[in-house]
Amino acid sequence: MSERTPLTLLGLGAMGTALGRSWLRAGHPVTVWNRTPARAEPLVDEGATVATSAAEAVAANQLVVTCLLDDASVGETLTEVDLAGRDLVNLTTGTPAQARALADWAAARGARFLDGGIMAVPPMIGVPGSGGYVFYSGSRELFDRRRETLAVPAGTTYVGEDPGFAALHDVALLSAMTGMLAGIAHAFALVRGENIAPKEFAPLLAGWLTAMTAAAHKAADQIEHGDYSRGVVSNLAMQVAASGTLLDTAEEQGVSAELLLPYLNLMERRLAAGHGDEDTTGVVELLPKPVP
Amino acid sequence: MSERTPLTLLGLGAMGTALGRSWLRAGHPVTVWNRTPARAEPLVDEGATVATSAAEAVAANQLVVTCLLDDASVGETLTEVDLAGRDLVNLTTGTPAQARALADWAAARGARFLDGGIMAVPPMIGVPGSGGYVFYSGSRELFDRRRETLAVPAGTTYVGEDPGFAALHDVALLSAMTGMLAGIAHAFALVRGENIAPKEFAPLLAGWLTAMTAAAHKAADQIEHGDYSRGVVSNLAMQVAASGTLLDTAEEQGVSAELLLPYLNLMERRLAAGHGDEDTTGVVELLPKPVP
Ligand SMILES: NC(=O)c1ccc[n+]([C@@H]2O[C@H](COP(=O)([O-])OP(=O)(O)OC[C@H]3O[C@@H](n4cnc5c(N)ncnc54)[C@H](OP(=O)(O)O)[C@@H]3O)[C@@H](O)[C@H]2O)c1
Ligand SMILES: NC(=O)c1ccc[n+]([C@@H]2O[C@H](COP(=O)([O-])OP(=O)(O)OC[C@H]3O[C@@H](n4cnc5c(N)ncnc54)[C@H](OP(=O)(O)O)[C@@H]3O)[C@@H](O)[C@H]2O)c1
Repeated sequence: MSERTPLTLLGLGAMGTALGRSWLRAGHPVTVWNRTPARAEPLVDEGATVATSAAEAVAANQLVVTCLLDDASVGETLTEVDLAGRDLVNLTTGTPAQARALADWAAARGARFLDGGIMAVPPMIGVPGSGGYVFYSGSRELFDRRRETLAVPAGTTYVGEDPGFAALHDVALLSAMTGMLAGIAHAFALVRGENIAPKEFAPLLAGWLTAMTAAAHKAADQIEHGDYSRGVVSNLAMQVAASGTLLDTAEEQGVSAELLLPYLNLMERRLAAGHGDEDTTGVVELLPKPVP
Repeated sequence: MSERTPLTLLGLGAMGTALGRSWLRAGHPVTVWNRTPARAEPLVDEGATVATSAAEAVAANQLVVTCLLDDASVGETLTEVDLAGRDLVNLTTGTPAQARALADWAAARGARFLDGGIMAVPPMIGVPGSGGYVFYSGSRELFDRRRETLAVPAGTTYVGEDPGFAALHDVALLSAMTGMLAGIAHAFALVRGENIAPKEFAPLLAGWLTAMTAAAHKAADQIEHGDYSRGVVSNLAMQVAASGTLLDTAEEQGVSAELLLPYLNLMERRLAAGHGDEDTTGVVELLPKPVP
């Protein structure tokens, strides 16, 4: 039964421990290993079997999950380990190229491979309805066969056979979030010195940003059609004109505009290139670096 | 009856025309004026009365709404006009200082004053459920007395007696949106060259950003308590460590990281200042400009 699939988990940091706990609570036999053995104790108390080496842990089960610090630590941990016939699922955050290299490396050692990008923090793991999920890419066969087990800690979203795609989706979403966090920081900096209650301001801000995520759908439509004029409501020329008020307000409030300037600069460059009637989405054309 | 309140509208650009149309459709007698008279024709066809000067338009009704290009055009339009006893509602985008100056100027001329910041585009005006709304600040008495009429084009959100607060809220939300749009542009730039359908990627991106607007609530709580350690899940040190993957992925995908760098730089400065255990929210401390 899939509810009882035994598995091996390498890496018991904050995330690995949360993953392991969710599987144990769902009744899966879990063999664990961590470089620093003491960190295994909480899960052993909850029923996990501890292995004294990564090789011993991997030998114990066909399904092997890694959740280590970074790509280098995965290489270090698995370098001397026999992976033949294993289903290796790597939940360590890395770049697309790292995931692709790991997939090749695993294949050369006779393992099937899935890479994962965790879109959750540890408190969301094993909590149905938390909204957390994991991007998976690589072997579709492995994903389908292990899906029920993989779905125990968090929702699963498979994004393609290319083993780099989970990392690419993960990083793209985290990058977009970084932009949003920058915007939120700037907004709070503007209102902070004023008699405006942060807790009254926050829902206005969150509600507006939520409504404006519609921009992602519009951008997708325009990029798909290679036409930045589709469905334009406020064109680039208007947006550039309006940006003066953003900069003047930052100045009035004594706030550095450093978090806004790169995007405003891209809009200006795009306007200068004659795209004033189009949507601002066209700035994506300016982001690829010239091939040297 | 409030449904029939007569009013004057100065400025019939894209937004002014949408506002005027919504009042006419709701049965309000509307007197309009626009610098370029031809732009009044569509509303006259729908029942508006046209005035031949701003002064004549203002003389026609107690409630006067301005929706002009910018603060300078409001000054130019009203400079020779008798405002005594008028309820002046300015829906022209500007800075908080401009709104405060206009409030003083209106008061000196015997007018009550409200400033507004429109959080909508023209197609959302007069469309219940569109999500569009207008921030108002200034005279609470005027707002309460005119609320029903003001609610015809879009929802109303009153944010305080300080006439600058509507503009400040408006600009803060637009600034935050600018950050989010920068993040969305970077995300699309990353996935663009790959075999990833924009329309499959967009809902993942929009869903993630929507979930992450929770950061606004957490930031508000931390700022309110002056304690960036409250409720930390992923601390600043972890975020800085993880940012290497964002930069490496941008590099792999041949995408400039210019839209991410200012925020990542602020995080590093904050970490270097010894705040690694706190939340990233603390970067707001670095945004106020030193007083010269
Ligand atoms: N925490 C989150 O919010 C979150 C969210 C999404 C994704 N992730 C990803 O999940 C992964 C694990 O994160 P975490 O929060 O669990 O990190 P963590 O608490 O810092 O744990 C790191 C783990 O990696 C191990 N490790 C580090 N270097 C190693 C090496 N050279 N050889 C063997 N093991 C090594 C550590 O072992 P020791 O105990 O011996 O140091 C520990 O088990 C990371 O890739 C992270 O990006 C985390
Ligand atoms: N459109 C939007 O999506 C949107 C969204 C939120 C807020 N707003 C704000 O709403 C206001 C109006 O925007 P809009 O989209 O209607 O702009 P618009 O279509 O460009 O219209 C500008 C209006 O201002 C008038 N004007 C410009 N300079 C003037 C002057 N010196 N004296 C008298 N009238 C002058 C124009 O008259 P002429 O016809 O004679 O040129 C026209 O009526 C702006 O403050 C804008 O920021 C717009």
